[in-house]
Amino acid sequence: MSRADTAGSGERMKVVVTRNLGPDVMPLLQERKELDLVVWPEDRPCEREWFLQNVPGATGVIVMLSDKVNQELYEAAGPTLKIVSTMSVGYEHIDLQGAAQRNIRVGYTPDVLTDAVADISIMLALMAGRNVRETTELVARGDWPNTAWAPYGFVGPQLSANWVHPTRTAGFLGFGRISKATLARLVPFGFTDCVYTSNPSSTPNPAADAETARTYGLRSVRRVGLPELAAQSDVVFVLAPGGAATHHVVDAAFLRGMKSTAVLVNTARGTLVDSDALATALRERWIWGAGVDVVEGEPHVGREHPLVREPRCVVLPHIASATIETRLGMATTAAKNLLGALFGEAMPAEVQM
Amino acid sequence: MSRADTAGSGERMKVVVTRNLGPDVMPLLQERKELDLVVWPEDRPCEREWFLQNVPGATGVIVMLSDKVNQELYEAAGPTLKIVSTMSVGYEHIDLQGAAQRNIRVGYTPDVLTDAVADISIMLALMAGRNVRETTELVARGDWPNTAWAPYGFVGPQLSANWVHPTRTAGFLGFGRISKATLARLVPFGFTDCVYTSNPSSTPNPAADAETARTYGLRSVRRVGLPELAAQSDVVFVLAPGGAATHHVVDAAFLRGMKSTAVLVNTARGTLVDSDALATALRERWIWGAGVDVVEGEPHVGREHPLVREPRCVVLPHIASATIETRLGMATTAAKNLLGALFGEAMPAEVQM
Repeated sequence: MSRADTAGSGERMKVVVTRNLGPDVMPLLQERKELDLVVWPEDRPCEREWFLQNVPGATGVIVMLSDKVNQELYEAAGPTLKIVSTMSVGYEHIDLQGAAQRNIRVGYTPDVLTDAVADISIMLALMAGRNVRETTELVARGDWPNTAWAPYGFVGPQLSANWVHPTRTAGFLGFGRISKATLARLVPFGFTDCVYTSNPSSTPNPAADAETARTYGLRSVRRVGLPELAAQSDVVFVLAPGGAATHHVVDAAFLRGMKSTAVLVNTARGTLVDSDALATALRERWIWGAGVDVVEGEPHVGREHPLVREPRCVVLPHIASATIETRLGMATTAAKNLLGALFGEAMPAEVQM
Repeated sequence: MSRADTAGSGERMKVVVTRNLGPDVMPLLQERKELDLVVWPEDRPCEREWFLQNVPGATGVIVMLSDKVNQELYEAAGPTLKIVSTMSVGYEHIDLQGAAQRNIRVGYTPDVLTDAVADISIMLALMAGRNVRETTELVARGDWPNTAWAPYGFVGPQLSANWVHPTRTAGFLGFGRISKATLARLVPFGFTDCVYTSNPSSTPNPAADAETARTYGLRSVRRVGLPELAAQSDVVFVLAPGGAATHHVVDAAFLRGMKSTAVLVNTARGTLVDSDALATALRERWIWGAGVDVVEGEPHVGREHPLVREPRCVVLPHIASATIETRLGMATTAAKNLLGALFGEAMPAEVQM
């Protein structure tokens, strides 16, 4: 009770949750008798109209990536709103400036998905090089019995170091937590070198790069420009934030600069890659293959989408963080961010504004 | 010339090659003027009749996994035959006893494919856990636009260590070079423990296990029996030789003993796994998923095969060693094994009989 008093009121606080967080996480909210929980009842994304009808007077909301938290929503909620907690690492659906003006805190769920996304990044790098889409589709079609073994049948470039290529270079467009977790996984594949690009406004730090190289047992870790990233890498991982500053940073010029045996992996945001340029690069064999978990304009990516039509492109429907453990972790963090803000406890992950 | 003389004759030595080894490797043979090269001219497996017609009087043969080297072939070749060189790591297609009786040396191509197979083993472990077949087929069908994001949509068990499961155990059925290369790759995924089974006739060596644990920075490496392998592992890699001794070693009892969140990967030989039992295990959710590069009875694995019909089973058409570099390495080793035996030089890899 004393905690509810901390929030400044003896009344119950209304909390709107736009998606059921499941039987392992909802009790974290339900056991707080101070809360008046209003939960979107269906197993599909929350309807905007329902959200706007239910949000007036709410003290907190837990939202998904698909819920726009904008001026309209802030006005519908009114001055009671103290916390917007999103079950996502991205927060491009939230108007941060509007939140700051209203003293609304914003929570998100970084860190917990780092390993799940690094896992998928490695998987896509392997799948893109080894013609997995062509070969699995062949088996599913029933054509294995008609396919004779051939000395060079279905060959692709080897990700791991080998007798022809004893060194391997990993390239990262963006060099945050997920990039480093991915780099760590590549080391026993025989990777020897790492190049990366960073936000141009940040300061280069060769000493930190040397330390990273030592940590992972690499020969070199170097911050470079985009042309060198393209030219040096045996695999390029796109792991930078979305938004205007990184829109189509992987374009035709970048792809033309890559090695013809290299592969591109995008597990960040679809907007970073020009899909048409990538489809051309694959069709004309500028690069070997690609693996993407995100596509610009998703989920409106049908069977006629240029990347879905390219046999050398593996396309996943945005499942990089979709492990049982990670999604439980994200939902738990979203719940704890909300509770932290409402009850004056620490928020596990607050967006700094 | 002196080398040809070493072989005991001034005449050219006939060498039959059952598959063109490509423009990077054939010159190794063509430049040896002492050889009379007879090469199957087509880009498909060599016909038996052609092989039998051309082999009489041959001093050496280079063969593929699909060419039976048996009594019939030895008799057709006659007493001139000194070397059978296969472009494969397996040699179950070669009658070794018959070769020994005739003093015919046998060459094969181990080691060079270790890293390519370890790469695919990691890829399949990831694909099997993360519902990749279901999700990529959904995208290919054009159903992404109709698929709403859900907090627990398409989730699978996380391969890497996580907040729910801070330890991870890798299991290996067979613990040779490829198993160790696969284990090394798992370490930065947060794997902490390793269990394995070995040929029962070999002697347990706890000191070597402790040394392996130290090498990879693991908490433990232990040789166990099949029931414990099944029970302890978060992922089981089947990496033992084929043959009668390992036939269906992964059967219903083994699969029932595995964790319901574990995955099975087979990149060794199809005969080690009972396909019907595995299909049942997947359908009835005894285990989470499977990834197989080999299937008993391959390539006669059509779209109605029980494993091809299981959405939780990724089936590849035996491409684990299919990288450009590895297949070049295998072809090069096969050529060098032949030349070594014919010219009294070292054979890079000779089967010990």
